[in-house]
Amino acid sequence: GNGVPVPKKPCIEHTEMSYAKRAKLPKIHPLASKLMNIMEEKQSNLCVSADVTSSEELLELADSLGSKICLLKTHVDILKDYTSEIGQKLQAVAEKHNFLIFEDRKFADIGNTVKHQYEGGLYQISSWSHIVNAHAVPGPGVVKGLNAVGRPLGRGCLLIAQMSSQGSLATGEYTQATLRMAEEHSDFVMGFICGGKITMRPEFIHMTPGVQLQTPGDGLGQQYSTPEEVIKNKGSDVIIVGRGILEAPDRLKAAEAYRKSGWDGYTQRLALSQQ
Amino acid sequence: GNGVPVPKKPCIEHTEMSYAKRAKLPKIHPLASKLMNIMEEKQSNLCVSADVTSSEELLELADSLGSKICLLKTHVDILKDYTSEIGQKLQAVAEKHNFLIFEDRKFADIGNTVKHQYEGGLYQISSWSHIVNAHAVPGPGVVKGLNAVGRPLGRGCLLIAQMSSQGSLATGEYTQATLRMAEEHSDFVMGFICGGKITMRPEFIHMTPGVQLQTPGDGLGQQYSTPEEVIKNKGSDVIIVGRGILEAPDRLKAAEAYRKSGWDGYTQRLALSQQ
Repeated sequence: GNGVPVPKKPCIEHTEMSYAKRAKLPKIHPLASKLMNIMEEKQSNLCVSADVTSSEELLELADSLGSKICLLKTHVDILKDYTSEIGQKLQAVAEKHNFLIFEDRKFADIGNTVKHQYEGGLYQISSWSHIVNAHAVPGPGVVKGLNAVGRPLGRGCLLIAQMSSQGSLATGEYTQATLRMAEEHSDFVMGFICGGKITMRPEFIHMTPGVQLQTPGDGLGQQYSTPEEVIKNKGSDVIIVGRGILEAPDRLKAAEAYRKSGWDGYTQRLALSQQ
Repeated sequence: GNGVPVPKKPCIEHTEMSYAKRAKLPKIHPLASKLMNIMEEKQSNLCVSADVTSSEELLELADSLGSKICLLKTHVDILKDYTSEIGQKLQAVAEKHNFLIFEDRKFADIGNTVKHQYEGGLYQISSWSHIVNAHAVPGPGVVKGLNAVGRPLGRGCLLIAQMSSQGSLATGEYTQATLRMAEEHSDFVMGFICGGKITMRPEFIHMTPGVQLQTPGDGLGQQYSTPEEVIKNKGSDVIIVGRGILEAPDRLKAAEAYRKSGWDGYTQRLALSQQ
């Protein structure tokens, strides 16, 4: 298991709040607020993981699925033809369709190094990606380094509290330490990558990868859950879907199926908590 | 502390072997063997961390310090002007001076993603870097993914078992789990990034960052140890030195001082074990 007790039955709380209400909380990170407003407006808690290796395909994917998503997750370091224009073009598509960009860089070095990796190099991630993520394993220096670059630009960071891959070490005390690190840096950390809800603080947003409507593994340790399981039962906020959409014969149709399934999970969770 | 008991007094063992002897062990990773032979030949257990942001400066550094080092650690993703020629040029300098290249990418994603990050993108790391490293937090899939790309090319991988940064979560059971992961994948994993010796298996090579002759911190959580402390007392094999050399008024002189200090630590350790 993931070490953190996650209820198998629907996670019912009387304090369950809508995304719209949470967006208005006084202590919420401005970018978490913006994202929750987008989610409510577009009735989408779907983040598409755009794991493609061509820039043209990435931009095409962003444009064609843009209306269905609240967030686009990228891995620019797997693009074979990245140029400095891609960041700006992605931003333009994101504005057109009203979604945010999340470069899944998984920063995991000491503070001084991640500062350079976030701001500099060929990718200049801080200049175009609203959200990035980081592993907690280096200790709080990783957040401090990213914060020094990202906060003046209004960026936000997710800490990786749990992973969907088999045998992950992000469990138990590691997850709890990650949570404490987020609480101590909540001016920049807006939420978590996790398997399900790990904190009752409604300001933090929970995002869950490894989501598929069909749920076999991939032979390299990836394990899948369904949108309903993740949102309704485990209390996460955002489903991150890669191969379930990218490998579908009709990507737009698949994205709509995931959007609907994720949103249904959310409305059911809200309804249950108001009974 | 680092969670793994590390003796404060010199780590004396009757089984202490020279780098040259370890290079001949039947089960050693070919690249660990090659590196240990280089170390013995050049009387250097110094890895320079080339944390510069200009490709020209990187190549110049590699060429000017090449005779002093066994390994050059790079962060190509902080170079503002990387082109695909840099990898080849680095390899040429490495051959000229007989050292290996270690791209400090700290892979930390699921297997399917790190495969692409290692092989593809603009950097094509697997095509020019002899050694890479990975965090154990995703579970064994990260090693399997890297292995699929790197092993056919004769590459090797270090797992990050401990970190030099303050509040790191790579301690105790996390470090032990990393060790087990390495043992289970010793056909590709050749050693560790760690604070000191963490396994008695002489096939694995230990490399320690955060080394300085002067030892204050950096205000972003980095903590330093001296070469003697790391090699003689903590039983590590390779010292990784960045700012101690890069920020010195005379880099070549500083590199020689670190080479000598690290090598002295090693010969003293060997002498102690043979008393």
